[in-house]
Amino acid sequence: MRALIWDGQQARLTEHPKPKATPTMAVVRVALAGVCNTDLEIIKGYMAFRGVLGHEFTGTVVEGPDNWRGSRVVAEINFACGQCETCRAGLGRHCPKRHVLGIDRADGAFAEYVAVPVANLHRVPDGVSNECAVFTEPLAAAFEILEQLPDVSGTPCIVLGDGKLGLLTALVLHQAGARVLAVGKHPEKMARLTDRGITSIRIEELGSQSAPLVVEATGSLEGLRKAITLTQPRGTIVLKSTLADSTQIDLTPLVIHELRVLGSRCGPFPPALEALATGKVDPTPLISDRLPLIEAETALSRARQPGMLKVLIESE
Amino acid sequence: MRALIWDGQQARLTEHPKPKATPTMAVVRVALAGVCNTDLEIIKGYMAFRGVLGHEFTGTVVEGPDNWRGSRVVAEINFACGQCETCRAGLGRHCPKRHVLGIDRADGAFAEYVAVPVANLHRVPDGVSNECAVFTEPLAAAFEILEQLPDVSGTPCIVLGDGKLGLLTALVLHQAGARVLAVGKHPEKMARLTDRGITSIRIEELGSQSAPLVVEATGSLEGLRKAITLTQPRGTIVLKSTLADSTQIDLTPLVIHELRVLGSRCGPFPPALEALATGKVDPTPLISDRLPLIEAETALSRARQPGMLKVLIESE
Repeated sequence: MRALIWDGQQARLTEHPKPKATPTMAVVRVALAGVCNTDLEIIKGYMAFRGVLGHEFTGTVVEGPDNWRGSRVVAEINFACGQCETCRAGLGRHCPKRHVLGIDRADGAFAEYVAVPVANLHRVPDGVSNECAVFTEPLAAAFEILEQLPDVSGTPCIVLGDGKLGLLTALVLHQAGARVLAVGKHPEKMARLTDRGITSIRIEELGSQSAPLVVEATGSLEGLRKAITLTQPRGTIVLKSTLADSTQIDLTPLVIHELRVLGSRCGPFPPALEALATGKVDPTPLISDRLPLIEAETALSRARQPGMLKVLIESE
Repeated sequence: MRALIWDGQQARLTEHPKPKATPTMAVVRVALAGVCNTDLEIIKGYMAFRGVLGHEFTGTVVEGPDNWRGSRVVAEINFACGQCETCRAGLGRHCPKRHVLGIDRADGAFAEYVAVPVANLHRVPDGVSNECAVFTEPLAAAFEILEQLPDVSGTPCIVLGDGKLGLLTALVLHQAGARVLAVGKHPEKMARLTDRGITSIRIEELGSQSAPLVVEATGSLEGLRKAITLTQPRGTIVLKSTLADSTQIDLTPLVIHELRVLGSRCGPFPPALEALATGKVDPTPLISDRLPLIEAETALSRARQPGMLKVLIESE
């Protein structure tokens, strides 16, 4: 089959053995996959990954248990061992032995076929298009905030960052009833929020605003510093994006103002799928471009261009 | 009266006007005061403070409302405005206009007399000695952790740091039922914990331990880095001490392991006083030395010496 392989030097579309089902692994024919910033980080060296890139996808099970074959699915990306103490505590997404789809020792979804644990599969509800379903994984990452902070209804909340994750986070907090102020650098990106009734401003327009809840989704040191100044005493900063390497930062305000910092990563698929099925969140305005798998190399470079949001790769 | 004044250049015992009572401020005759690391930070430039040093004390009200005069008291150190939005939300300790006793625009307690808001006074229960009562403020700071994390009973907990705050924190978490492992560098300091049945080890002896709750009370970058590696996925790091200046640190594990970081500063006096009254916490083994006010300059330099824990200053 065709697959986009990262060999440590370059990302190349090449022939690659089609994965095989096992008693615990199903094979999915990929329909649509999405390029994530993590993919772009990997080709800069993150996680020292080698193999097929891509972890956001939707498709149809072609090999696996009878009750799954033919189903339209999405799949959680953390392949947990299921046996260790962490897994037994219900924290499989944190299994220390986990492989991660397209990120850590597991071939990903920028391919015609991908193998995933049966335990990780979720059916896509009827009426949810592939264009919506392909957003399940990043949308679940935004829903993780609601798993960590279940009661945000009525809470003033500043979301820093107008990249894909920032916009999805603003949409998810807004539909949960938080009073969202989105802050970014690109009015044309934030326009996707205005349509949904979310207030957005450019970072230069920030005055003396503050909030009890601030989400840092810029992935920049500047964003984290800003988040610390914007958070009210005893307030919460959610860290949604990782910062490359070590960070020079003054953490004293965390203690003086007794701030709470919550690291937040992958999230639960069921509420994300439900939000897509009910239309509470419509991620499709975030689609900037779509290309066939044969042009996957171009898709990656296009995703790196300024102003781009989600770039999709069509595998069929 | 005599007072230990920090003028930005040196800490000197000198004559200073005795404070006067006002309708909202009482004057306390200081009996005993304690030297805190914050005092030592101030004379290195922290907070750009000028005035009488000292914020840990106990004494007797000599001027003020009738119902307070003659009472043995301790006093909270944050002088809140009582009017602003933060104060009205019950967060007076975070009042943005606050003055702080001996730290920020309020003369402190290394003196014969000190003025404090009547609203900040707490009576010392009968049977609590001055030697115990003088620990109320730092002990309250340790109890702040229980205000932020009310249910630590049975929770495995690593306390990093064998300074005064680290030891008090270990004592407070232990009496609340947490399974405390204290980690430090000075066996002779940690011996104060062994007597109370708390396990302690030297940091070099740490193996692959981890815990869902880790308290960083070393005030060192090394301690914070260690805390991040010791905390289990979805676990909590309590930051009890501030780090000087900016800190070069890799925050990626906070996101990957979805850690929670809680800044923790001043705490509630009532549970601290109750723990002293019932004997649940006995801080007196932490007393390393005591000197009269006339030797306050020596007391400060002695508190800086290696191996020292609490140095007390006797004002009467």
